Amino acid sequence: MRIDIITVLPELLKSPFEASILKRAIEKGLVEVHFHNLRDYSIGNYKQVDDYQFGGGAGMVLMIEPIDKCISKLKEERDYDEVIYMTPDGSTLNQGVANEISLKKNLIILCGHYKGVDQRVRDLFVTREISIGDYVLSGGELAAAVLCDSIIRLLPGVLNDETSALTDTFQDNLLAPPVYTRPSNYKGTEVPDILLTGDFPKIEKWREEQAMERTTKLRPDLLE
Amino acid sequence: MRIDIITVLPELLKSPFEASILKRAIEKGLVEVHFHNLRDYSIGNYKQVDDYQFGGGAGMVLMIEPIDKCISKLKEERDYDEVIYMTPDGSTLNQGVANEISLKKNLIILCGHYKGVDQRVRDLFVTREISIGDYVLSGGELAAAVLCDSIIRLLPGVLNDETSALTDTFQDNLLAPPVYTRPSNYKGTEVPDILLTGDFPKIEKWREEQAMERTTKLRPDLLE
Repeated sequence: MRIDIITVLPELLKSPFEASILKRAIEKGLVEVHFHNLRDYSIGNYKQVDDYQFGGGAGMVLMIEPIDKCISKLKEERDYDEVIYMTPDGSTLNQGVANEISLKKNLIILCGHYKGVDQRVRDLFVTREISIGDYVLSGGELAAAVLCDSIIRLLPGVLNDETSALTDTFQDNLLAPPVYTRPSNYKGTEVPDILLTGDFPKIEKWREEQAMERTTKLRPDLLE
Repeated sequence: MRIDIITVLPELLKSPFEASILKRAIEKGLVEVHFHNLRDYSIGNYKQVDDYQFGGGAGMVLMIEPIDKCISKLKEERDYDEVIYMTPDGSTLNQGVANEISLKKNLIILCGHYKGVDQRVRDLFVTREISIGDYVLSGGELAAAVLCDSIIRLLPGVLNDETSALTDTFQDNLLAPPVYTRPSNYKGTEVPDILLTGDFPKIEKWREEQAMERTTKLRPDLLE
């Protein structure tokens, strides 16, 4: 998989891709992630990439021309499955969407900033608009990092233990059961006896019950 | 506001707090953000912070003792309004939750990693569990950065133009209307005439209609 991220703040995105699982996935060659600074495609002497919105109002808008130039250049080099725009009014990311996108080959992710991008960018170039949730962020950069994390960890070979992703919350529309580790007694608080029995079929059954109970209590909407 | 983030990967969190709005908010003294490396509170010679889960199964679990030590130390120094645990089975972050948390004074944010934290940490220390959406990430670090961004940008004085946050998507349960900037004609694609009229009451009315139309089409659930 190859991901090209277009942003006015590539420096914001740096550390999440240089640590932990994303770093390992990149080092193993399982994914390539390229940052493109929109300012490299800016217009005029002032390196302009944004401007006031037509009709008045607070907040700057990212201009169409630099984005067009950047996307066009990338598209000349290879075909893309999707041009994704991160925006709070996009369709909401969930595990099913992450699973689906993790099967694609080449992706462009466009990060909004300030008031977002000129609507014509969305009309002309964007194939998919994704929101990571019903809240507003300073820009699309963290949202892009979240999307990348959610899909890259699903690529074959990225997680050390393949079964780990399959037992995650949401993969079966259930919240995960509670987990415990040593010590079995911490200042008087003990782990459930069943987990210490070594009776794995029983433990599996207990976990399923706990997952169902938790989901029914906390997120009944997932069971609908 | 003061935010203390407890994590096994402080390096992952670095760049989002060193750029753009979060950086400015910290420099202006409007918020203090401190990272605490859980390994500094580890146990034994091996700097252990995680262990296999009781009852078997893939994925490591963060141990209770290092987390207890870190949280206890912080609580000795000041009172905290909330100890927030970032977890996909927490209650889902939305703009209303972000608004509410932005009014707090001192927060601890605990990032899960691997399979999460020992359930006893959640039972004993955590006052609030938050998920940024129905998908799984490699860890709670990006989720913590997202939560911080969503609340810090709401602090008075953080955004340059105070009205900017108020016209965001979600603040009135409506998606934002489309925005346009120069040029008014880009390769034959024009901005809506109304935005060029200078008739601001009419423009305002058009934007409200667009916001309603967009919300009805894309996110009817927000209107319920």
